[in-house]
Amino acid sequence: MTKKIVECVPNFSEGRDKDVMEAIADAIRQVDGVKLLDYSGDPDHNRSVYTFIGQPESVVNAAFNACRVAAQRIDMSQHRGEHPRMGAADVVPLIPISGVSIEECIELAKKLGNLIGQELSIPVYLYGYAATKPNRVELSDIRKGQYEGFFSKIKKPEWIPDYGPYEVNVKSGVTAVGVRKPLIAFNVNLNTNNIKIAQEIAKSVRYISGGLRYVKALGIRLNRDGIVQVSMNLVDYEKTPIYRVLELIKVEAKRYGVSVIGTEIIGLVPIKAILDSLKYYMQLEDLDVDKILETRLYE
Amino acid sequence: MTKKIVECVPNFSEGRDKDVMEAIADAIRQVDGVKLLDYSGDPDHNRSVYTFIGQPESVVNAAFNACRVAAQRIDMSQHRGEHPRMGAADVVPLIPISGVSIEECIELAKKLGNLIGQELSIPVYLYGYAATKPNRVELSDIRKGQYEGFFSKIKKPEWIPDYGPYEVNVKSGVTAVGVRKPLIAFNVNLNTNNIKIAQEIAKSVRYISGGLRYVKALGIRLNRDGIVQVSMNLVDYEKTPIYRVLELIKVEAKRYGVSVIGTEIIGLVPIKAILDSLKYYMQLEDLDVDKILETRLYE
Repeated sequence: MTKKIVECVPNFSEGRDKDVMEAIADAIRQVDGVKLLDYSGDPDHNRSVYTFIGQPESVVNAAFNACRVAAQRIDMSQHRGEHPRMGAADVVPLIPISGVSIEECIELAKKLGNLIGQELSIPVYLYGYAATKPNRVELSDIRKGQYEGFFSKIKKPEWIPDYGPYEVNVKSGVTAVGVRKPLIAFNVNLNTNNIKIAQEIAKSVRYISGGLRYVKALGIRLNRDGIVQVSMNLVDYEKTPIYRVLELIKVEAKRYGVSVIGTEIIGLVPIKAILDSLKYYMQLEDLDVDKILETRLYE
Repeated sequence: MTKKIVECVPNFSEGRDKDVMEAIADAIRQVDGVKLLDYSGDPDHNRSVYTFIGQPESVVNAAFNACRVAAQRIDMSQHRGEHPRMGAADVVPLIPISGVSIEECIELAKKLGNLIGQELSIPVYLYGYAATKPNRVELSDIRKGQYEGFFSKIKKPEWIPDYGPYEVNVKSGVTAVGVRKPLIAFNVNLNTNNIKIAQEIAKSVRYISGGLRYVKALGIRLNRDGIVQVSMNLVDYEKTPIYRVLELIKVEAKRYGVSVIGTEIIGLVPIKAILDSLKYYMQLEDLDVDKILETRLYE
């Protein structure tokens, strides 16, 4: 019933030349059935990020089109920038939004990886849920050594690419194509200026220090208001829903006599993440995405 | 930014003849830019309800098309049914969903009323927010006397139609065209089988007995579970949001030592109603409709 929607958030190694960035944007826009929601370049990182959504097959086509333009217009042998990078099309994550399983996205990632490997002669590594080996799950592991290091790294048996040639494409480098879940940037503001409290609460809710499995968290100072914030990435809102994170933060804040004075969700959020939390707070027995009037427009 | 969406939920005086009901459905489906979400007929009431959404002008066209087919296929002089009725196209409400003001919908209602009056020679009364006189705000006031009574009612100065001829169309009767806000059917289940408690709580939250302005409520028994329910219609979720109704019910339930064991929203709900309540519970400083990923698909 629900329309199949996949999101793609590719990163390209160009954050300065507006013509090149716009050419990549056009390559995405040209494909029917996808919608480019946003893109932006960072000159220091010399890197740009694009966000688009659409029907599964169209998203693969648009991603491939964008990678082709990147391969034509970006020369990695000349690339300098602060952000670690390994290819002109550096990383291409596919993200299931609605009506699509992780498994379907893995199939799409393989199709896209094969296209990039075959048509553009660029080595491709599958990562995230699409990874074919445990050491390829984390993007940071793949990217270690960056473009320059890959000329020797690619020779190692454990770094044979999943698709494409077994040697680095000098102009385009190598590309990671993968599948991840939607990421929600969720911040909680506290009525204190004591950064220690935000840091302690961040520690108590985040995965690496014993907290909730799919939460990354930092305590930071908000200069604008003289308050502190627990700044988070929720990397699997289905398994660690937003409300649970917020309520746990409230529980921890109590011990410091501190309370939550506001929260924010940064960027776009899938409607299901919203409904999951509302269902908790309102004890709703059921509230499917297709009960939301507006979603019926794009069935 | 947000796309303009209007909903239309017309009622026609045919709930038995499937061919006629399907012909009306087709008249709606034929119009580009609208989506027929649902329709159903009730044989006892001899009446059918259609729900469709779309761009403002397209919704007017689809509503007019449906009224034309109803005028051709339904003969009110032969109509019998339990539900009060006055026309083949009995009532045609336009409902602002997103990016559209009440005022814009009033203009659309006038346009539609004029079309029905001119092209189909059917007397039209504007009602709800579109009413031109105080006694035409409530649909029940307009419908009093029904089809049969209108032959004399229409002669009274205070019942001169807003559009169309000043006498009843014998075959098609008269039609009410109006503007109302989205209606949310919201039910709250209590962990008791004492119907009195549900009735007392309903009384305390509903408008007519001193409660919240835009709440209609009844206490009813749910046979399935041996529990009781406060069954409500929220007629203006922007001014009386869902969370406020729920929290007030919890406050009242306390005096009986009773608690809420579940809630439900029946039918379709505009995304804004959902976000308003989530913002309350999560103390979200901001969460606009266009932050919801899926809504970006139909911009």
